[in-house]
Amino acid sequence: MSCIFCKIIAGEIPSYKVYEDKHTLAFLDIGPVNPGHTLVVPKKHFANIEEAGEETLCRVMKTVKKVGLSLKKNLGAVGYNILEANDPEAGQSVPHLHFHLIPRLPGDGLTFWPQKKYATGEAEAVLKKINMIK
Amino acid sequence: MSCIFCKIIAGEIPSYKVYEDKHTLAFLDIGPVNPGHTLVVPKKHFANIEEAGEETLCRVMKTVKKVGLSLKKNLGAVGYNILEANDPEAGQSVPHLHFHLIPRLPGDGLTFWPQKKYATGEAEAVLKKINMIK
Repeated sequence: MSCIFCKIIAGEIPSYKVYEDKHTLAFLDIGPVNPGHTLVVPKKHFANIEEAGEETLCRVMKTVKKVGLSLKKNLGAVGYNILEANDPEAGQSVPHLHFHLIPRLPGDGLTFWPQKKYATGEAEAVLKKINMIK
Repeated sequence: MSCIFCKIIAGEIPSYKVYEDKHTLAFLDIGPVNPGHTLVVPKKHFANIEEAGEETLCRVMKTVKKVGLSLKKNLGAVGYNILEANDPEAGQSVPHLHFHLIPRLPGDGLTFWPQKKYATGEAEAVLKKINMIK
């Protein structure tokens, strides 16, 4: 077993456990964007969303919701962001499906990626490609 | 009805529909980070994750998975990011729960928020607060 998250789940590597149930684990990211930054993972190893079944995604979201509520109620977060990086090229550093929960603090200055505009006809062309397979 | 996403769902405002089923809708963000940037929403109005029930979150994730797969298979994305902003203070600009799916392109240069380190004892203190209510 070489996956670091599988080792954390198995207790072979210590972690700051935020929440645990039969199918999911939530633990602090040791390199937080803001204090309380939590990772939610399925206990079973799946590289990404494509590998995980719908039931797994449901369970993970259920835990995301619980942890998010606690970040707001107990940690004083004014909101939070969920971030998932699907595949190494999307910035996924550990190939075990994980959702980041990042509590937001007033004035933390975090901003999103810049948005562009579609050129005339570009959105239609993109949509046609995406919808090639339903 | 003043919610812009409710108007899109009702067909009162046109959109580029990527996918639709009984409970969810996916449509192009008209201000894309990368072409193909899609928003996935429940058809019923919920402001955020706390308002939405678990079943709704499951349905939304099911659609996220479908659209994500299409972005990779049909649009040539090398991966994608899921982003959700929960509450206005977290950057949520439309108060109707929505998940961003951002297709990633080689060399698009998108990076994540900087990560910090916990001071000694800080992670333990944060964890204690988060776990005040299970």
